[in-house]
Amino acid sequence: MKSKFITAVLFLSTAILSQPLIAEQTVKPSPNGIHLPEAYKDWKVISISHRIDNKTLRTILGNDIAIKAARAGKTNPWPNGTILGKLVWKQQAKKNWPKAIAPDKFVHAEFMIKDSKKYKSTGGWGYARWKDLDQKPYGKDKNFAQECVSCHTPVKDNDWVFTIPAIMP
Amino acid sequence: MKSKFITAVLFLSTAILSQPLIAEQTVKPSPNGIHLPEAYKDWKVISISHRIDNKTLRTILGNDIAIKAARAGKTNPWPNGTILGKLVWKQQAKKNWPKAIAPDKFVHAEFMIKDSKKYKSTGGWGYARWKDLDQKPYGKDKNFAQECVSCHTPVKDNDWVFTIPAIMP
Repeated sequence: MKSKFITAVLFLSTAILSQPLIAEQTVKPSPNGIHLPEAYKDWKVISISHRIDNKTLRTILGNDIAIKAARAGKTNPWPNGTILGKLVWKQQAKKNWPKAIAPDKFVHAEFMIKDSKKYKSTGGWGYARWKDLDQKPYGKDKNFAQECVSCHTPVKDNDWVFTIPAIMP
Repeated sequence: MKSKFITAVLFLSTAILSQPLIAEQTVKPSPNGIHLPEAYKDWKVISISHRIDNKTLRTILGNDIAIKAARAGKTNPWPNGTILGKLVWKQQAKKNWPKAIAPDKFVHAEFMIKDSKKYKSTGGWGYARWKDLDQKPYGKDKNFAQECVSCHTPVKDNDWVFTIPAIMP
């Protein structure tokens, strides 16, 4: 009897622990079916940028496949399985160092997922973006990604990617 | 005889595998005795910044203790064991998006290590910096850190830290 109880407790604990966090459950998928990548804030840095035109700061992160490729200099093309994530903030003058620009309000997190077969119609990349802190998916329907492809066309020869990995020791 | 041979091989393998990588072995410690933190490029992002005054871009990373504190909003004071790392690059206009600024040449990696007892004489933080891609330690002698403390004095009330963790979902 006792062992059945322990088995039941273990089963329930495993079931509970294997669920994603509530916060992740409530983030809706992108209209093209892409889900918010898990634990993307824990990914390693590939580069950063400051867009003067729309006054935003960005950090570009990558999953393990992306980081391995970036560090090996093998990013044209990026390997299948690569996910690039970009976290974007509005800029503000840094309060304790006014001649520096620092992140203000969070704008969005956006992703490119490389799968040359699955996303053949959009250059081998799946695109998705979640806006604001409440992470609303971007796009009215699954065709929204044509807008991404259009903007990325100037870097078609760089495997559709604007980011050049920052040089590190 | 065979078992002795296997033991010897296992011993040697363990000895070899427990050595740091050659690249890390050749990086000299800071004049105050601080060693370059291992695998700091794999740390998670706390924030980023763009210093207009000296035309550099920066990403601020943290070890696991720092990230836990940053995400919990418990950064004044930062807990003992925190290591903050800042990677700094000269800026350049992004070739494929000229209205954006991206990293150019790598300038240095610098660190603040929180240990309120060990580094009591410098505000509870140990400071170290390694310059350029060949990671030369900064400072003529161990007193170089007074320069760091002097520059950080305006943020004494923020536990001597300029960085405010960027807001993330």
